[in-house]
Amino acid sequence: MRRVHLPKGTSLSTSVLTSLQHALGDRVITDPVALAEAARDSSRYAPEGMPLALVEAESTEDVSAALAWAHANEVKVSVRGAGTGLSGGAVAYPGGLVVSLAGMNAILDIDVENRLADVQAGVVTADLDAAAHDHGLFFAPDPASARTSTIGGNIATNAGGLRCIAHGVTRDSVAALEVVLADGTVIRTGARTRKNTVGLDLTSLFTGSEGTLGVITSATVRLKPLPEGEPRTFRANFDDIEAAGRAITAIVNSAVQLEVLELLDARSVELIEAFAPSGLRVPGAALLVGQTVGVDAEAAAESIVEICRQHGGQDWAISESDDLLEARRLANPALTAQGLRVSCDVGVPVAQLAAVFRGIADLSKKHDRGISIVAHAGDGNLHPTVEAEDTPEGYAAAEVVIEDIARLALDLGGTISGEHGIGAVKLHELPLQFSDDELRVQRAIKAALDPAGILTPGRAY
Amino acid sequence: MRRVHLPKGTSLSTSVLTSLQHALGDRVITDPVALAEAARDSSRYAPEGMPLALVEAESTEDVSAALAWAHANEVKVSVRGAGTGLSGGAVAYPGGLVVSLAGMNAILDIDVENRLADVQAGVVTADLDAAAHDHGLFFAPDPASARTSTIGGNIATNAGGLRCIAHGVTRDSVAALEVVLADGTVIRTGARTRKNTVGLDLTSLFTGSEGTLGVITSATVRLKPLPEGEPRTFRANFDDIEAAGRAITAIVNSAVQLEVLELLDARSVELIEAFAPSGLRVPGAALLVGQTVGVDAEAAAESIVEICRQHGGQDWAISESDDLLEARRLANPALTAQGLRVSCDVGVPVAQLAAVFRGIADLSKKHDRGISIVAHAGDGNLHPTVEAEDTPEGYAAAEVVIEDIARLALDLGGTISGEHGIGAVKLHELPLQFSDDELRVQRAIKAALDPAGILTPGRAY
Repeated sequence: MRRVHLPKGTSLSTSVLTSLQHALGDRVITDPVALAEAARDSSRYAPEGMPLALVEAESTEDVSAALAWAHANEVKVSVRGAGTGLSGGAVAYPGGLVVSLAGMNAILDIDVENRLADVQAGVVTADLDAAAHDHGLFFAPDPASARTSTIGGNIATNAGGLRCIAHGVTRDSVAALEVVLADGTVIRTGARTRKNTVGLDLTSLFTGSEGTLGVITSATVRLKPLPEGEPRTFRANFDDIEAAGRAITAIVNSAVQLEVLELLDARSVELIEAFAPSGLRVPGAALLVGQTVGVDAEAAAESIVEICRQHGGQDWAISESDDLLEARRLANPALTAQGLRVSCDVGVPVAQLAAVFRGIADLSKKHDRGISIVAHAGDGNLHPTVEAEDTPEGYAAAEVVIEDIARLALDLGGTISGEHGIGAVKLHELPLQFSDDELRVQRAIKAALDPAGILTPGRAY
Repeated sequence: MRRVHLPKGTSLSTSVLTSLQHALGDRVITDPVALAEAARDSSRYAPEGMPLALVEAESTEDVSAALAWAHANEVKVSVRGAGTGLSGGAVAYPGGLVVSLAGMNAILDIDVENRLADVQAGVVTADLDAAAHDHGLFFAPDPASARTSTIGGNIATNAGGLRCIAHGVTRDSVAALEVVLADGTVIRTGARTRKNTVGLDLTSLFTGSEGTLGVITSATVRLKPLPEGEPRTFRANFDDIEAAGRAITAIVNSAVQLEVLELLDARSVELIEAFAPSGLRVPGAALLVGQTVGVDAEAAAESIVEICRQHGGQDWAISESDDLLEARRLANPALTAQGLRVSCDVGVPVAQLAAVFRGIADLSKKHDRGISIVAHAGDGNLHPTVEAEDTPEGYAAAEVVIEDIARLALDLGGTISGEHGIGAVKLHELPLQFSDDELRVQRAIKAALDPAGILTPGRAY
């Protein structure tokens, strides 16, 4: 048995950890370097202290044993896949237990005739998509992190991404789950059918619950048939971001079938070009880029470009290359490289896009601080990044602006988080969107399923 | 103030009811004929005694006042819209309170550019659809009862219908809700955006909760653009129902875009023709009927008919008339007229259709009892009707067969209810699908939101 490295300041005795090691052997990791790594996610939220141990689960039984142990010993648990979360939901608790699903990465079955896949939680999302391709199918949810993030994490956060305008969010592709509850009990939710009205919809409830209600160990997800024909990528530059917003509203309200519709403002394009030069021309105000698929992809792209032209779009192009979308996927690493960690993730109804762009420009002036914008524009989901020093003081100053952006989104009928979730980073913004009664209902459900409060406590709601 | 008619056997004093009448005036109905009417739904589940009173709510405040009163006085509450439910979920409790939302039937707003509608719970579903048509939009959920059932009831039961294969279930069209909790507290859930990851997904949780967690008073629902071109209706007859099942699996797995895909077996067609003759030819074993929409509707219908032919389909036809689907909508009234109330509502993965048809034929032989089948075949959702006398003994005998059908569906990876819900009628089947732990989780959530257990208690799960 490996030697136990007990972090300083923990109140748990070595003998308590020994019982976990007795149950799980060398899947219990206590090496400080590994623990420090497992304590973080991709957000700017830093752990407040070292966890006690990390369980690298290899099976549902491992997860069950780990939670039963944590429940019995009242140890707080954080749950992680690839650690790509942007809201601090997977950050470890001081003296807590980290449960990692990264090793549970088997694609168990692809049921072609029912267009379903059974996957363990640790499967990398792009790997599932690639496996489905071999059968003429694909997995629609497509967060920008798809090549590194895991399906369990995607489900736990109800991840969004680039193709939501065509295929909805991750929740829309989840049919059934296997979940380990806080006390180690294993349950299944949902069904393999397209319709199911038996009991409460626990599948939707666990999806997006950010690790607070149970640990998702495997899932049955829906696949879709690969579209025929070759996709087309289109682009247009705008000198006026509000005009780009009106163009997007018009495109979404036209008869055209869209697969992707994204917006990058001029500052974001500059930063991406600085990070990974690809010859992308910096627009006057905003670049609109997207994709159409299917046998009518070319005609659809032409219709979209025509709508852009009617709204002042220039330098338009239609291409068979995917390069533009690849550039879009680099937005988060490019901003992170500048010390600008994306944390603002508001959503507005799509007809309010021009208004939200105008409001953000006003806030930039009011606070005398640059705000760049990357947006899943077709769903009205924006990631404004407030320029700030990469210091606690810099973030505190930026946070004031971010809260104003959240209020702006709510005033326009929107939401304070479109796809990143609340985690730890946005917890203070919750009262802007929820009444006390609404928060009380959320927490009553949490208390019903996790009465000891060990699972990702104090986060998400 | 109107005179109070206290039903016999109630334990509540007149003074208790007086406080309700003080709050709600003549919206409190105690006329025995009206109460008897409000005590039933469209299922074969009969009320066990008369309710104390009916509240005909005209506002969210009325519902809140009624529930606060019921909560304070520990009176069981049933909730109803049009009373079209098929599982007994809206049947009144003896000495209970009935809250009717039928009078809250205003379409509050149609937000064309965001493709959203705000509606009160009592709006008839087809009225919402018609109002959306005026703006080039439509409301996709389309239960066979759409011309009488209300949107609140559709949401509370997560209703299915004919267009689910193309547009999903009711839950997929609900963006946000206003809900009155058991103690009268009013909350809002969801958002007007396409993406929202703030807190637990209470919108999905209340949708399909069958009146057990709260009373839905209004909703924000998603609309879709009306397809261009004229729809096409297609049909084909099969001499072998298993071949029809294989044809459906092949159609659903083809590249064709479907709007509707239904199956009626020969016995069902006979009954519909007897109820409302339309010249529908009775097939050897099964009639497959469906619809395609959009500019490619004719070509899509031709592809489908070709797949039917390859699987032995005969007498195929493609038409611009909607008559065949109208006939399909008469299945429930036609069976009801025979004393055969549809109550079986199983679902299977669509590749298991031939197997479930074979299994039902085997059960028909085993029990020596006719079983007719109407199916939303494209989603694998079947309504088998077991022939039985319209007496308690007849139903008890049929129930044995129905339970065997439920077991068959589960053995094939299916569900015991695709769209009608559990209500009171199917409560005894729940342990076939849920483990004790799974039931415990459902009931823990119920207890967290309705600790006094007044809202539709003892039903759904």
